[in-house]
Amino acid sequence: MNTWGNRLRISLWGESHGAQVGVVIDGVPAGVPLAESDLEEDLARRRAGSAGTTPRKESDAPHIVSGVYEGHTTGAPIAVEFVNENTRSGDYRNLTTHPRPSHADMVAQRKFGGFNDPRGGGHFSGRITLALVAAGAIAKKILGEDVRFFTEITEIGGSNDKARFGEIIERARMAQDSVGGVVECRVEGVPMGWGEPFFDSVESLAAHLLFSVPAVKGVEFGSGFEAARMTGSEHNDPILDAAGRTDGNHAGGIVGGISNGNAIVVRAAVKPTASISRGQQTYNFETGRVDELVIKGRHDVCIALRAAVVVEAAMAVALADLKLRA
Amino acid sequence: MNTWGNRLRISLWGESHGAQVGVVIDGVPAGVPLAESDLEEDLARRRAGSAGTTPRKESDAPHIVSGVYEGHTTGAPIAVEFVNENTRSGDYRNLTTHPRPSHADMVAQRKFGGFNDPRGGGHFSGRITLALVAAGAIAKKILGEDVRFFTEITEIGGSNDKARFGEIIERARMAQDSVGGVVECRVEGVPMGWGEPFFDSVESLAAHLLFSVPAVKGVEFGSGFEAARMTGSEHNDPILDAAGRTDGNHAGGIVGGISNGNAIVVRAAVKPTASISRGQQTYNFETGRVDELVIKGRHDVCIALRAAVVVEAAMAVALADLKLRA
Amino acid sequence: MNTWGNRLRISLWGESHGAQVGVVIDGVPAGVPLAESDLEEDLARRRAGSAGTTPRKESDAPHIVSGVYEGHTTGAPIAVEFVNENTRSGDYRNLTTHPRPSHADMVAQRKFGGFNDPRGGGHFSGRITLALVAAGAIAKKILGEDVRFFTEITEIGGSNDKARFGEIIERARMAQDSVGGVVECRVEGVPMGWGEPFFDSVESLAAHLLFSVPAVKGVEFGSGFEAARMTGSEHNDPILDAAGRTDGNHAGGIVGGISNGNAIVVRAAVKPTASISRGQQTYNFETGRVDELVIKGRHDVCIALRAAVVVEAAMAVALADLKLRA
Amino acid sequence: MNTWGNRLRISLWGESHGAQVGVVIDGVPAGVPLAESDLEEDLARRRAGSAGTTPRKESDAPHIVSGVYEGHTTGAPIAVEFVNENTRSGDYRNLTTHPRPSHADMVAQRKFGGFNDPRGGGHFSGRITLALVAAGAIAKKILGEDVRFFTEITEIGGSNDKARFGEIIERARMAQDSVGGVVECRVEGVPMGWGEPFFDSVESLAAHLLFSVPAVKGVEFGSGFEAARMTGSEHNDPILDAAGRTDGNHAGGIVGGISNGNAIVVRAAVKPTASISRGQQTYNFETGRVDELVIKGRHDVCIALRAAVVVEAAMAVALADLKLRA
Repeated sequence: MNTWGNRLRISLWGESHGAQVGVVIDGVPAGVPLAESDLEEDLARRRAGSAGTTPRKESDAPHIVSGVYEGHTTGAPIAVEFVNENTRSGDYRNLTTHPRPSHADMVAQRKFGGFNDPRGGGHFSGRITLALVAAGAIAKKILGEDVRFFTEITEIGGSNDKARFGEIIERARMAQDSVGGVVECRVEGVPMGWGEPFFDSVESLAAHLLFSVPAVKGVEFGSGFEAARMTGSEHNDPILDAAGRTDGNHAGGIVGGISNGNAIVVRAAVKPTASISRGQQTYNFETGRVDELVIKGRHDVCIALRAAVVVEAAMAVALADLKLRA
Repeated sequence: MNTWGNRLRISLWGESHGAQVGVVIDGVPAGVPLAESDLEEDLARRRAGSAGTTPRKESDAPHIVSGVYEGHTTGAPIAVEFVNENTRSGDYRNLTTHPRPSHADMVAQRKFGGFNDPRGGGHFSGRITLALVAAGAIAKKILGEDVRFFTEITEIGGSNDKARFGEIIERARMAQDSVGGVVECRVEGVPMGWGEPFFDSVESLAAHLLFSVPAVKGVEFGSGFEAARMTGSEHNDPILDAAGRTDGNHAGGIVGGISNGNAIVVRAAVKPTASISRGQQTYNFETGRVDELVIKGRHDVCIALRAAVVVEAAMAVALADLKLRA
Repeated sequence: MNTWGNRLRISLWGESHGAQVGVVIDGVPAGVPLAESDLEEDLARRRAGSAGTTPRKESDAPHIVSGVYEGHTTGAPIAVEFVNENTRSGDYRNLTTHPRPSHADMVAQRKFGGFNDPRGGGHFSGRITLALVAAGAIAKKILGEDVRFFTEITEIGGSNDKARFGEIIERARMAQDSVGGVVECRVEGVPMGWGEPFFDSVESLAAHLLFSVPAVKGVEFGSGFEAARMTGSEHNDPILDAAGRTDGNHAGGIVGGISNGNAIVVRAAVKPTASISRGQQTYNFETGRVDELVIKGRHDVCIALRAAVVVEAAMAVALADLKLRA
Repeated sequence: MNTWGNRLRISLWGESHGAQVGVVIDGVPAGVPLAESDLEEDLARRRAGSAGTTPRKESDAPHIVSGVYEGHTTGAPIAVEFVNENTRSGDYRNLTTHPRPSHADMVAQRKFGGFNDPRGGGHFSGRITLALVAAGAIAKKILGEDVRFFTEITEIGGSNDKARFGEIIERARMAQDSVGGVVECRVEGVPMGWGEPFFDSVESLAAHLLFSVPAVKGVEFGSGFEAARMTGSEHNDPILDAAGRTDGNHAGGIVGGISNGNAIVVRAAVKPTASISRGQQTYNFETGRVDELVIKGRHDVCIALRAAVVVEAAMAVALADLKLRA
């Protein structure tokens, strides 16, 4: 389904090689200053160009086509569109008969009776995350200046040594391969009290959005999986004062599904890009047996690099919805 | 919010020490054989009694009060209630002035202006998971016999040696402490094609429910966080035949947010119980400073033990909703 | 689907001859004084007993089983149950083979493969409106004392002469027939600004709930269908002052889907009870031809009489949801 | 809120004088032949140009920008956009200080703190119905050829004599006034069994959409308000055969909230256009008293004329959602 949200509602559309990718956001309070330039910082963080990412060049210029008047949000739905400029076709001819491993090619063909747009992954392309980043930038406006995001890649290819990241990525590229990574997003300034349990806890809404992002295979809050290895006396965060500040933050800022005023900490595991250029042995419908598939086209070596701002956007959207519901 | 779902909709209510915990499930197709006894197996798996879990005794007898007629579902909403029998009050007197670390006490008081039911954690109690387990048992009926669940505790206190689990738990109990664990749920028999991207992928719906469960702090699918440490050539699952069977299953049965016919594999990290009996130094509103808090009452040493069937229930509900939407 | 609402969410269940009818309401702010006795006034208005209504006797005692603690709402879901006491079976034997005209008998059997509970109309029974009335009583608490409801029957059997209502009903009863009526609900004290267009206007939410009520076949706001017969100069409501008070109220208090501070006026057309005791010629599946059907059992002669408080409840729920969203 | 639907979900955006009006539709099955030309017939029915309607000229050319590939729907969200070409500004200068009677001017300014786009009614403009008509045309594709719509104006200005309609409209135009009307939509070919009670009955979903349409003030099904004036023996529709065909159709094809296979009949009351060119005495914020307001600009004399296809679109969308849920 292409919509998400209770008070802040987002709906998206678009394919990698279609005319555009877009999103409409409703529930944004009226009177918030908003211009296309407000989206530029986060879009730039996502844009292709840095080492290890895809060489596909798009300007990714956002066009706000509704919901803004004389520089402020009107309270009406805000639609943002991105024209797809660089749709080099011809790189994806064999997807229908020789589906790529760990891609949506085969499942999409099955689910949509062969009518899905196969070009560039169609609606399954990472390009759709443009819409999520745009929504995130607008969500941050709702959250205001006091809510601050700090997002970074904490792991690439199993290493947490940032000095080695570039080398690990280059090595993978030379090997015609790809590497995964872990993104950590830390949000400060969220007051105590956001979250709508039972089902719409902070973790639930954040995870719902995070797992929508292509390539995310794990999400954890606070100590996450490490908490499973602790004792209660180690993991508990004693409360230090009447404001709820804790000694330690294994909870990642969330208890009982509700924010407790301490920094919200989330980590997303991003798998290595499935589209690698080295040959893969995988079933070929045309020949009826396992054959070598060589994927052409342009692909990230480490999509975790671009996923960072997408993770942040997902957190922003979830928190903005919860702020409006608090 | 207390409701979840698109085609299969569940709404729950109840507190630890209130009259009852309950759930109503709508969207169940008519004609499915259903009786209260059908819930017994999963309820028993959850029930208190085994080593390492809370000594609170409840019969947890389910009462189906609507939606079933002459042994079959009618297509109308099915409500299931659980009377709370063993509500030993008096164990929770100091929660409002001396909130427990890593519990919802403080955030709930803040969010609900002090009007929340504090007894036993009120609506934040793990007892509410009875409702989810009941919904899961009914969801399994929708999924049918071909969909099979295999759930187990894969880690306790950092160890994956099942022979040591009992000893680890006992050691924690003697130390008036608690331990966390990891639950793995594997679902076989899910055909290719379930999942509604962008936002309602298999992972997103499953994670939304899993993170609603008290104490879950991490969720991963397939190789999960381990995938972040792999290369694409390692992580990719080549397709072996026209049915989509893969060589390896790092994807955990889900690609592009849609099931691919291979086993769905999910793991949930369960934190150690926050209620431990050893003293904790934490802020006391009455004295205005950090004091020792000793929690009385009955608490699990390792809630991961009981979380297993709850994790399975969450998966069943998510998959049943997606089956009805496929 | 058995759930409705965005900020105020209600989910209901139950059948005429099942164990109970119930509703759970979530989103009620914490701290609202609430007791079972608060529901009594509206339940009494609905209860069977007055001339022209069904002689089925039920105490309709509400049991609040969650969400209330020490006399106040906790912010957690509030479940209210009604035990069905007087389920005289045996009155409904021939529904499956000789479906009643203008009843759900046949469509329900088709839709639910014959598994629907046929007794007393099952989930289609007017008894389910108990749940809606309970929700409405609680919704009124959210609206507060300033919002006042004035509901009355404005027509019975085509006459708007209240002095004749009793006579018209009696005449119908003697003729083993039934009559329809019109209910008008007027709500004062709703401030300007409630309503969430495009899709969740005041009229849309109110009508969604009103048309859920069995037997409602028409809904109009302000001048309603009469507006279709006016000119703009007649229908327009000029604004008299800065507060938005209008000269005349053809709009029924709603413009552009948003409340304008003037009284909200809605009318619901309630059809005559389909269950009449006089014989009807209708298709008989057993004989394969049109036969005489004589409906036994207890039935309202004029359900509009009991629908009044249900219409009011629907308005209260819709307005409470919108108040929480404003 | 700008989204609606459960299986078929539509989200819209746009203002009268903004860049565009648009809609995205998700849940359309893959493989349905669809081209922009498929929308032309219904868009033409809506388009300005006929007597009694506004002289504003727009080409209303639809641009499908996603969800269609090689002439067929892909199963991904379908976005349709309409560029606003003819935005003659300057006609709406005094709306903020001298709000028009029975318009959203004042309530929108109050609700949105003065930040709403006032030009042409902004998001409250009837132009937004373009989005609904586009969605309706696509919904009809889901319904298929067997479901046939017959929509007509049955009343204008209180008269049901079609020969007089033109004259009534002309008389109103000459008087610088406007007239209301009634639209009747009849849908044949809907099989028995669509509808999701309790809350999502056919009437509820249809009415929710119909009352979203600007200017609709009343909705009735079958005999509607006339049913309130009948007896049960008059109103009941006896069943004639095993297929459920009824003798008479006072129910308008819906019983118990579910379609019964007979024609679905709905009527919508459309108020007279609030924007009339004759002077009106209404509160002026600038002078602080009631003054004469003369509305310039281009306005329909009888918006019921254009509302017809919009009513049909609303029915199509509601029925398509229910078909997918049946």
